[in-house]
Amino acid sequence: MPQGFTVWLTGISGSGKTTIACHLEQALHARGQSVEVLDGDVVRTHISKGLGFSREDRDTNILRIAFICSLLTKHGVAVIGAAISPYAEARAQARALIGAFVEVHVDCSLEEAARRDVKGLYAKALRGELPNFTAISDPYEAPEHPEVRADTERESVEESVAKIIAFLEEHRYLEPLILDADGNGHRPFALTDSLEREAQDGSR
Amino acid sequence: MPQGFTVWLTGISGSGKTTIACHLEQALHARGQSVEVLDGDVVRTHISKGLGFSREDRDTNILRIAFICSLLTKHGVAVIGAAISPYAEARAQARALIGAFVEVHVDCSLEEAARRDVKGLYAKALRGELPNFTAISDPYEAPEHPEVRADTERESVEESVAKIIAFLEEHRYLEPLILDADGNGHRPFALTDSLEREAQDGSR
Repeated sequence: MPQGFTVWLTGISGSGKTTIACHLEQALHARGQSVEVLDGDVVRTHISKGLGFSREDRDTNILRIAFICSLLTKHGVAVIGAAISPYAEARAQARALIGAFVEVHVDCSLEEAARRDVKGLYAKALRGELPNFTAISDPYEAPEHPEVRADTERESVEESVAKIIAFLEEHRYLEPLILDADGNGHRPFALTDSLEREAQDGSR
Repeated sequence: MPQGFTVWLTGISGSGKTTIACHLEQALHARGQSVEVLDGDVVRTHISKGLGFSREDRDTNILRIAFICSLLTKHGVAVIGAAISPYAEARAQARALIGAFVEVHVDCSLEEAARRDVKGLYAKALRGELPNFTAISDPYEAPEHPEVRADTERESVEESVAKIIAFLEEHRYLEPLILDADGNGHRPFALTDSLEREAQDGSR
């Protein structure tokens, strides 16, 4: 079984979490990884209907997502969590629960996020029509020591994803690829074979 | 990746769901399967805090468990769900969501369950102290066509588990074991190797 891990994308609305999640998902698929994206908004409809945006409800939602991440991670899945997750304490609890946890701060300035205003929410929030809107009428506690910082104001999505993949390789969550003469990436065969022998022995 | 599936144990309190779940978990582990048990009571504390025992709340809880089962099943895990799940409609929705769904009716008479009274709840319920208690003050809609019926009043837990394993083998959720001269079970080597080659090819 490959090693499971959770890449946890945290950042304000419009910072680029979903975009990075999509590109990272493809990159991990291309490595032969089993991948699951848990998007905060989607998960809310399945397991957190009725919860609002108070600190308590946000934290409850984050811990439910973390619970699902922990189950998938334990079974060898590469999980990508994408949720604002504004409170440092809830993220710390998610980290403790999941173990193999890679926190990525998807970072851009409030001005840039409001300029993008992907969902048209900043305009409303700035008119005071949305209570509990992160970074406007609610706090966002930026991670102090994230494993990776993706600066979506200055980096392309490809650059951000490359940084995440590099971190995963460095810390052995992913096997590094070996480039052939044509520049195509391959997993190192010797390592692959010995891992498969182990998996085979373990399952008999 | 091995095929994922969910064995869904439904039955009244005290019917033996947890006991069968434990033994089935061991049997599947011994086959080299990646297994996760989702016990209704345990899952409630993680993803359904605040939900009660009205029909609506029960159904919401079942659909949340089913959502998690579907994610794990999709990634090749053998999931065992153990929850009373008294309403046929919610079970049908779980089946539709999960796909590879094996419904097991963990069945014993109300008298037998009340005699066992593992959690001391039947005594209370029969004194009228527990509203919404399944099979006393709330309905239990027994499955009409479960894939397996485990009669825990007449069968040993080993017999019930053997019936479930036999069903899983017959329907190719599990590879059948081949017995050697000493009576030990082995997976058929030819099949194993070809599956591993496929998995290997698929991941490059």
